[in-house]
Amino acid sequence: MSCNAPIGVFDSGIGGLTVVREIMRQIPGEPIIYFGDTARVPYGSKSQKTIITYSRQIIKFLQTKNVKAIVIACNTASALALEVVAKEVSIPVIGVVKPGAKVASEATKNGNIGVIGTEGTINSGIYNTYIKELNPDVRVYGKACPLFVPLVEEGWLTDPLTVEVAKRYISSLLGLNIDTLVLGCTHYPLIRNIIGSIVGNDVTLVNPAYETAIELKQVLLQAGIENNGAACEHKFYVSDGADKFKRFANTILPCDVVETEDVNIESFADALTTYL
Amino acid sequence: MSCNAPIGVFDSGIGGLTVVREIMRQIPGEPIIYFGDTARVPYGSKSQKTIITYSRQIIKFLQTKNVKAIVIACNTASALALEVVAKEVSIPVIGVVKPGAKVASEATKNGNIGVIGTEGTINSGIYNTYIKELNPDVRVYGKACPLFVPLVEEGWLTDPLTVEVAKRYISSLLGLNIDTLVLGCTHYPLIRNIIGSIVGNDVTLVNPAYETAIELKQVLLQAGIENNGAACEHKFYVSDGADKFKRFANTILPCDVVETEDVNIESFADALTTYL
Repeated sequence: MSCNAPIGVFDSGIGGLTVVREIMRQIPGEPIIYFGDTARVPYGSKSQKTIITYSRQIIKFLQTKNVKAIVIACNTASALALEVVAKEVSIPVIGVVKPGAKVASEATKNGNIGVIGTEGTINSGIYNTYIKELNPDVRVYGKACPLFVPLVEEGWLTDPLTVEVAKRYISSLLGLNIDTLVLGCTHYPLIRNIIGSIVGNDVTLVNPAYETAIELKQVLLQAGIENNGAACEHKFYVSDGADKFKRFANTILPCDVVETEDVNIESFADALTTYL
Repeated sequence: MSCNAPIGVFDSGIGGLTVVREIMRQIPGEPIIYFGDTARVPYGSKSQKTIITYSRQIIKFLQTKNVKAIVIACNTASALALEVVAKEVSIPVIGVVKPGAKVASEATKNGNIGVIGTEGTINSGIYNTYIKELNPDVRVYGKACPLFVPLVEEGWLTDPLTVEVAKRYISSLLGLNIDTLVLGCTHYPLIRNIIGSIVGNDVTLVNPAYETAIELKQVLLQAGIENNGAACEHKFYVSDGADKFKRFANTILPCDVVETEDVNIESFADALTTYL
């Protein structure tokens, strides 16, 4: 595998760009191939079988771009598909859940950790599993927030109605004396200010993107495949609405997204059976 | 084509069940094959090309069930795909937009009609086109309401927050002196009470499902393919989450939905190119 090969990063849509932003900040020399599954977004309420099928297709597509490692920049796919799909390829595959769990287990002082995410992520219980592996003495409380993704996609990032919805979701966690709250969906950092204003300054907000970029850096170093200084060009692909995606990406990323290409992602289907 | 063959009905997910309910009420003798594309829901913000591709796959699936006619029980797919896909099959294909436009053009007294729907439906301008074909002297005002579908899917059907979101969307139409409002998305009848309380008793709410069932009845009569009294069994298929769908269907429909089957809808892809 060439050191100068790109990193594949994928998400159900635009949320994963918050992870890309962090990778570009921490390891700016690595070229990125991003895929957003905008034709089938959102993943949050769909079944594990479907999320595994979609993840497999996307990984197959990314491999046609000769990526040297893959980041699943989507909590739902990290929760429901990572373990299965990582075994099927020979390159490193990392997700956002384990890094987020690591930060949360280190951040808590009183041992009460809240996690917010999609239905798929919360119902999987995966943050609880990973956090308890690192620190068995903590208590983890999950709350699914299905309307956050549509509110972010609607662009109501500072809207009073988003505040009201957030209060509704988060109030049940506040009564549990949490001192740490994991933003367990890559869309949520975009409404971080609203969430922060509700939980107050005494609760640490954990954005798994930061630690994910650190883990990616370590994985590349350990495998000896960090970029050795070659030109770094990023490429963006989606399954629907390339122009709309490009406009959004340019409001999020520090680089100029000049072009986004549409991909027929279903054509990357294969004969693999999904085992759960 | 056998008179006793079923009617195929499809939607992006659960919304089309409001159309099925109306068909069952008006033409109870007709067996229905329903397909809900729950793996790729929602359609409302996706491109015409993608909606055509998905509609083609679903029609191909429905044809394996030997349906004698197809109802596109989704406004977005009716708006963006019907015209293209109807030409590709030899059985009648009807949508919900033309029937809704007919009722609206007949209902208005002052000539000011509002239409609410998904981004795809509203941006297509199709209600305006059809209504003006029937009555060139009216004025049609559209407003996309992207959060209504997630609010309904979240089950907040009578929630004060849904009222607030609805007020935000609908207030701009109220200043335009509309006397008729088309519920241009099959999810919206499920929050009809909220919408009605905001627009008041002087505005007629149009649910295209009612007129769609009437049009279907006429189409079957004209083609001489109405069911002649054979046993009437309905079947339900989805692309994801069959159990969840079944639970919801049983709260909506007058019949008992005993079983819902998962279908790998992507496997019905074909080599057709999408022309726009």
